[in-house]
Amino acid sequence: MARVVSWEAFKERFMYDPASGFALDTSRLSYSPDFITSMQPAIKAALQEMVDLERGSLANPDEGRMVGHYWLRDSSIAPSEEIRRSIEEALLSIRAFAERVHSGQIRPNEKDCFEHILVIGIGGSALGPQFVTQALSSPSDKLTISFFDNTDPDGMGATLATLPSLAKTLVVVISKSGGTKETRNGQIIAKKAFEAAGLDFAQHFVAVTGEGSELDKTAQVEGWLERFPMWDWVGGRTSECSAVGLLPLALQGFDMDALLAGARYMDGLTRRTDVTSNPAVMMALGWFHCGCGRGAKDMVVLPYKDRLELFSKYLQQLVMESLGKEFDRDGNQVNQGIAVYGNKGSTDQHAYVQQLREGVHNFFAVFVEVLRDRSDRTVLPELPITFAPDEIEVEPSVTSGDYLTGFFLGTRAALYENDRESISVTVPEVNEYTIGMLIALFERAVGLYASLINVNAYHQPGVEAGKKAASDVLALQAQILNQLASSEHGMNAEEIANALQAPQKTEIVFRLLRHLSANSRLTVKPGATVFEDSYCITA
Amino acid sequence: MARVVSWEAFKERFMYDPASGFALDTSRLSYSPDFITSMQPAIKAALQEMVDLERGSLANPDEGRMVGHYWLRDSSIAPSEEIRRSIEEALLSIRAFAERVHSGQIRPNEKDCFEHILVIGIGGSALGPQFVTQALSSPSDKLTISFFDNTDPDGMGATLATLPSLAKTLVVVISKSGGTKETRNGQIIAKKAFEAAGLDFAQHFVAVTGEGSELDKTAQVEGWLERFPMWDWVGGRTSECSAVGLLPLALQGFDMDALLAGARYMDGLTRRTDVTSNPAVMMALGWFHCGCGRGAKDMVVLPYKDRLELFSKYLQQLVMESLGKEFDRDGNQVNQGIAVYGNKGSTDQHAYVQQLREGVHNFFAVFVEVLRDRSDRTVLPELPITFAPDEIEVEPSVTSGDYLTGFFLGTRAALYENDRESISVTVPEVNEYTIGMLIALFERAVGLYASLINVNAYHQPGVEAGKKAASDVLALQAQILNQLASSEHGMNAEEIANALQAPQKTEIVFRLLRHLSANSRLTVKPGATVFEDSYCITA
Repeated sequence: MARVVSWEAFKERFMYDPASGFALDTSRLSYSPDFITSMQPAIKAALQEMVDLERGSLANPDEGRMVGHYWLRDSSIAPSEEIRRSIEEALLSIRAFAERVHSGQIRPNEKDCFEHILVIGIGGSALGPQFVTQALSSPSDKLTISFFDNTDPDGMGATLATLPSLAKTLVVVISKSGGTKETRNGQIIAKKAFEAAGLDFAQHFVAVTGEGSELDKTAQVEGWLERFPMWDWVGGRTSECSAVGLLPLALQGFDMDALLAGARYMDGLTRRTDVTSNPAVMMALGWFHCGCGRGAKDMVVLPYKDRLELFSKYLQQLVMESLGKEFDRDGNQVNQGIAVYGNKGSTDQHAYVQQLREGVHNFFAVFVEVLRDRSDRTVLPELPITFAPDEIEVEPSVTSGDYLTGFFLGTRAALYENDRESISVTVPEVNEYTIGMLIALFERAVGLYASLINVNAYHQPGVEAGKKAASDVLALQAQILNQLASSEHGMNAEEIANALQAPQKTEIVFRLLRHLSANSRLTVKPGATVFEDSYCITA
Repeated sequence: MARVVSWEAFKERFMYDPASGFALDTSRLSYSPDFITSMQPAIKAALQEMVDLERGSLANPDEGRMVGHYWLRDSSIAPSEEIRRSIEEALLSIRAFAERVHSGQIRPNEKDCFEHILVIGIGGSALGPQFVTQALSSPSDKLTISFFDNTDPDGMGATLATLPSLAKTLVVVISKSGGTKETRNGQIIAKKAFEAAGLDFAQHFVAVTGEGSELDKTAQVEGWLERFPMWDWVGGRTSECSAVGLLPLALQGFDMDALLAGARYMDGLTRRTDVTSNPAVMMALGWFHCGCGRGAKDMVVLPYKDRLELFSKYLQQLVMESLGKEFDRDGNQVNQGIAVYGNKGSTDQHAYVQQLREGVHNFFAVFVEVLRDRSDRTVLPELPITFAPDEIEVEPSVTSGDYLTGFFLGTRAALYENDRESISVTVPEVNEYTIGMLIALFERAVGLYASLINVNAYHQPGVEAGKKAASDVLALQAQILNQLASSEHGMNAEEIANALQAPQKTEIVFRLLRHLSANSRLTVKPGATVFEDSYCITA
């Protein structure tokens, strides 16, 4: 049953904004006009909540916080003079700092200038800068960038090994709370690396964090180069327009104002009260329709553009952490959310479009189309400047970019033919302005959708459980090491757990012993089976 | 309701292989012993199918092909002398070629040696090498590596711009069929780049492809450096142990024999007929249990190791393309598959564990634990060689690697507490041998699971639909350009579609016109709305 969308139907569902060139196409969603009508009251309420939130209501009531990421790109709408001023001051300080780094006024020592950034952050403190870097970087960037985004020592070692020069590296430590362990660990290891190289680390480090946080205090005490603010009214997953995103971006030499302008412009479009001309509303309604308002279908994000490959990873956090909630705002157990994954087209066509087209029907797609094939950022230093991959004909009158468009339209058609729905977003090109637009579009869609399903998009209570469990594990490890230090001979997992009066934790003891001995901190004496291996502290 | 697994129950479900240090823990799957018993006949049949397949049965009957990726690491079991010899010859030729490149015997010109590889491939011809590169690379690699893995000209431009030197770059074009358009396009653009730089491209190019394919012929006619075989009995998604994976790996200086040995060893473990000691069987049964044998739950792959970050992407293809099928082997419509996504822990804890723990309960997790924190591959050229991030204490007697272990165990516990099931795989460290083991484990698990659900894991009929639709789109573009070339004045989408007697394709015409004009190949004259914009060929 080949399904076709008529030109007339398409025109009704293709929302186009002439000023920006942005378009949202919902013609491959199979809802009836009644659906929109029936959702009108809920949408009206959601839009009103958004108005309240932008005016400074406590949108995150259980944490007693306002939610102000929209103010970051338009400080004039901030709910207080104090907040307005702090946003503007932060922008000025970011701009000034980046300019002074670029001009060499801020430098690590007499001889060197900063040429490289190492961002230490995780989750919301890394995903935005990683997404923007992938989208915008080119050999003409003013500083190159690397990341510590985990607590894996080998990963950090591998990243350190690829830094062109520690002596020319500026380290940006990002943690809103200032207490994130992975980030704290990265900070310690980076500091040790600078010290091992005989460098004065404080002349290389800056912090982005909440005022008075542990990180803020450390930066102050140790005399780091600079500190930039984060506020409790900005969530990590919506922090790209704060210093978290803007500082790396400005240092790299990207146009901070254009990103903010793009986000601000999209905020304008997504405040519209006319439902069908508001792209965030139409996006949220699309999610609601596809997943029956309970996340019954996964969202597969497929940008047809290499530079947008990390967009799905960025959205994974924004969407899943905001919407994946056990209880709704009235305390009912709802187990909400939308699972998000994806990489890029047409590459993924060779990975899993087989399943999308024919397999388990548990998803809808969000395509991102970029009209312009070439980015001005592409510079090929070794080649004549006239070399332009986008202009090369791979067949008469056909470019590789035409193939990219062909695969986008072909895949969308092949999916729709089999009843797999999709939404298509179009931007004219990839640049700071359109990246700002995309971020703002999804931020608002998530906020509106959360209202529709009545969950709090701005807290993340479930994250605490994993952290708590992890700190219990580390406490147990300390007990194990103590126990072994005071033991005359080797002990196995069962003996240790019993000695600690925690037989229910024997497996965790067993796993910790194996990890410690694999890293030469314990010596193992093989038992009859692996479960009976006994361990003692390595001399 | 805190759920605890007793030490006794854990020991029963922790399958440990002393010789390799590999372990598979299914203790966080909540099936009863009856489940295994009830599945015994199906498993027995699946194992027998695997025996037949390894003996050379036509495991892919609709394409009339044998399926022989297991022979690649043990040619002695190949079903014919001819196949055995061709595998061994390929290994010899890969090894010899890599050695001659390393020694400088094969070089692009008198002056230069090869220092960099550009792999051009997509899907199965890129994901394996990308995964292995991320897992194993270090500054001591013999050659560095980049990829063209799409038909995005801007992406190719960006990759070219980061190559240290075209003159020292070896290009490896990989396409089994030799007719993959994205790869063909990349090959053309790379060739043009070499020509633009005044280099003799044929002295830089090698091909990995089926004998007699279009690519094979081109390589022969143009006098490329070398050609390496691909066989019709190896699928793209199981090609890491063929020249597709081994040639890049050998060139990079990794240990090809160790990867093959690891895979061969795991093949041995996964041929066991005793169900509970066969890790691939236990994995497949776990998938079956979690998703009710119909992919009812997504598989979230979470390696706690930065080097394994691309494993989920690799598995996305292996699992989804193999299992995502509309029809079973008896022709019944089943819409099977398992959706796969994930990145790495603990990073993802800050991205979407909120949803995993509390939100929509539509997944199970596969954790990968790596016991050894440090990789010998980490070399820090600028730092004293004694700098070892894994040994740095971030708190007394606590390393950042202890935190990684803590987050793994903590997250697993937090999920299980909320009834979210998981499987944990443990390897002693990340190296060629364990990568070979992991690849072989999942290859076999996919094959066995396919038997359990009665689908053909070795074809991908759904991929064709997208390709066909894409080529229809490109044919339409040619018609549009023809139409406009013969038109005296501008035409809008509707007029062109009507002139081509394809009014049902008006939207596609509209989208193609917008793409062509965004790239200056058409000139647009604005109409009253975007739908009425009219276009003519740019002079």
